[in-house]
Amino acid sequence: MIPQPSRGFERAEFERRLQKAQARMRVAEMDAILLTTEPDVRYFTGFFTQFWESPTRPWFIVLPANGKPIAVIPEIGAAGMAGTWVEDIHTWPAPRPEDDGITLLRDIILQLPRKFGRLGVPLGHESLLRMPAGDYQKLLADLSAFDIADASLLLHQLRYLKSPAEIEKIHFICDLTSDAFEHLPNSLKAGESERQNCHRMRIDLLQRGADTTPYLISGSGPGGYDSIIMGPTDRIIETGDVLIIDTGTTFDGYFCDFDRNYAFGSADDDVRRAYEVVFRATDAGFAAARPGATTSDVWAAMWDIMEKGGALGNSVGRLGHGLGMELTEWPSNTPEDKTPLEPGVVLTLEPGMEFAPGKQMVHEENIVITEDGARMLSRRAAPELPVIG
Amino acid sequence: MIPQPSRGFERAEFERRLQKAQARMRVAEMDAILLTTEPDVRYFTGFFTQFWESPTRPWFIVLPANGKPIAVIPEIGAAGMAGTWVEDIHTWPAPRPEDDGITLLRDIILQLPRKFGRLGVPLGHESLLRMPAGDYQKLLADLSAFDIADASLLLHQLRYLKSPAEIEKIHFICDLTSDAFEHLPNSLKAGESERQNCHRMRIDLLQRGADTTPYLISGSGPGGYDSIIMGPTDRIIETGDVLIIDTGTTFDGYFCDFDRNYAFGSADDDVRRAYEVVFRATDAGFAAARPGATTSDVWAAMWDIMEKGGALGNSVGRLGHGLGMELTEWPSNTPEDKTPLEPGVVLTLEPGMEFAPGKQMVHEENIVITEDGARMLSRRAAPELPVIG
Repeated sequence: MIPQPSRGFERAEFERRLQKAQARMRVAEMDAILLTTEPDVRYFTGFFTQFWESPTRPWFIVLPANGKPIAVIPEIGAAGMAGTWVEDIHTWPAPRPEDDGITLLRDIILQLPRKFGRLGVPLGHESLLRMPAGDYQKLLADLSAFDIADASLLLHQLRYLKSPAEIEKIHFICDLTSDAFEHLPNSLKAGESERQNCHRMRIDLLQRGADTTPYLISGSGPGGYDSIIMGPTDRIIETGDVLIIDTGTTFDGYFCDFDRNYAFGSADDDVRRAYEVVFRATDAGFAAARPGATTSDVWAAMWDIMEKGGALGNSVGRLGHGLGMELTEWPSNTPEDKTPLEPGVVLTLEPGMEFAPGKQMVHEENIVITEDGARMLSRRAAPELPVIG
Repeated sequence: MIPQPSRGFERAEFERRLQKAQARMRVAEMDAILLTTEPDVRYFTGFFTQFWESPTRPWFIVLPANGKPIAVIPEIGAAGMAGTWVEDIHTWPAPRPEDDGITLLRDIILQLPRKFGRLGVPLGHESLLRMPAGDYQKLLADLSAFDIADASLLLHQLRYLKSPAEIEKIHFICDLTSDAFEHLPNSLKAGESERQNCHRMRIDLLQRGADTTPYLISGSGPGGYDSIIMGPTDRIIETGDVLIIDTGTTFDGYFCDFDRNYAFGSADDDVRRAYEVVFRATDAGFAAARPGATTSDVWAAMWDIMEKGGALGNSVGRLGHGLGMELTEWPSNTPEDKTPLEPGVVLTLEPGMEFAPGKQMVHEENIVITEDGARMLSRRAAPELPVIG
């Protein structure tokens, strides 16, 4: 058990994030970037609230080419935003459907210095605009003085490189969740449902000091499971079943994301073999993960092992991804992705294969790229499939 | 404690939802509606997964003018969607940044019968498109055969009216959370932080049988709190403090959303008076909530009591809202909203006021509109401010 890191970040960390963003904005010739999502707003301001769970009100942060972030937010958030390093805070009495901050936001953007005439907005892969699409159209009509440029890759690349303080938070929640998984064989029970088994783990994670568990799924079946994104269901675990539990649990707004597999009573040879193949694929991915290599190299190292090990296919679409403020972040370990790895990058290694029709085996570990290789953040799964009872 | 309702819905419930949607689509002259968000997809298909926590992949449901919903989804979701009543399921190997389902979705929409040449898309207040904005622009360019019409109000109005099975789920989680709040004075401790106190409640909710607690915030301060959307923080609760805890906790994908207030050691007269004013405002809102009245009538009944009771203002922007599959749903209790209430509507009554500079008092209860009035789903807060210790 590693000690709990402090919460929040030093002001200098937000200053560095902003400086890096503004340096890239100059290269990309953007006068400002418009942010609307929870992680993007939190990344640049430190504004950290569960209130995003309410979809009613939009929230806007404008990153100008020079100077600190500008908040254009519902009045309900004024006191909270005033507690961050942001000073320029504009509010309106939301919800106000006829003009939910749009003219206020427009006026603030139009008052910015216009050097390039370009406004960055996240438009690309793994981005979304958390505001009504009709309001975005209205805003664009009023901002005809600007060309709109896609800022998604720029933002992905900034958040891709984690600071030591960010890595410490992810490491802490990985370690805590590793404890929970290692303890799980003591509480897993055949004769009870997936839901009952997962519910106990959810409580256990909180009791160990996790903040929240936004993601805790399971799949099970005789000799294997067919899905890794549904459940837990009321299906009763029986002898001969294989169970996967996968969790995204958080500390201070940072996620772990990894899974563990368990057999009940006994395990057939093909299941044990699939487990062993995917375990070795993780090793191969870990060995390939170093500065200078790419996400595609990591994918190839894992897929090679699984292909030789009899993989029929993979329905996940990738073998791992970025990790941090969200359960899954850019980039993806795929043949085409080819994103270069750098020290400070946090990734999941998620080798998964269909080893028989309708039966999958998926492992997952969380790692950070270091100067000369990579380091495990989760504690490695058992090298052989654990058998319960 | 009321008994736990069954999970999921009968197939007939999904058929009714679809029939109602298609009847309104005919009136609105829409050939189809495109859905992209978790609650909209779940409402029409029953597809229920925590995997939406991963922002990487878009998911699409097309509601045609005739026939069942069509799923256009990442391959990773195929097994899960096959477990719903949806039969027409198209997948692609997501993530595929260069074409993440867009040409597949386009082809399916273009193959639909075109009677009106209009495609419904949620564009209005309290809606968003959960897909990259750039991909939406590409899709529109390929769908020039269609006019795009805002479907947000149509969808809000459908989800606004809850079925008996939906109300039963909301009632169950309200009742369970009422138990937790009523038990809370036994575990609340001055000398500990907001975070420690809230963490215990989060565990208690799970132990009582809640599924998840996506929202559990607190505010505290000497004689009052200044925010109801931040926290819990590491601030230590002291004698003389007022604490609010507000939670959105779920059962089977349906939320409760209400709060409770507590004083520690003692409470000044102005705090007690504010509590009593806001308690009476809740009574007035409840009395006004009946078929034939509107959300604005409910707002007026509550605000009248608070204005006479010395309210300096309200920074929340409304006095309650719809509730169900999301923590907050359309509509809002505001002066302008004027949405007619009908039997089956679930609302929060959330009277809140600033009773002294920087000090708020906010109550909240959850109700359902009945044939001849309304019924409480949460168990009423204590009529006088509870004092701990």
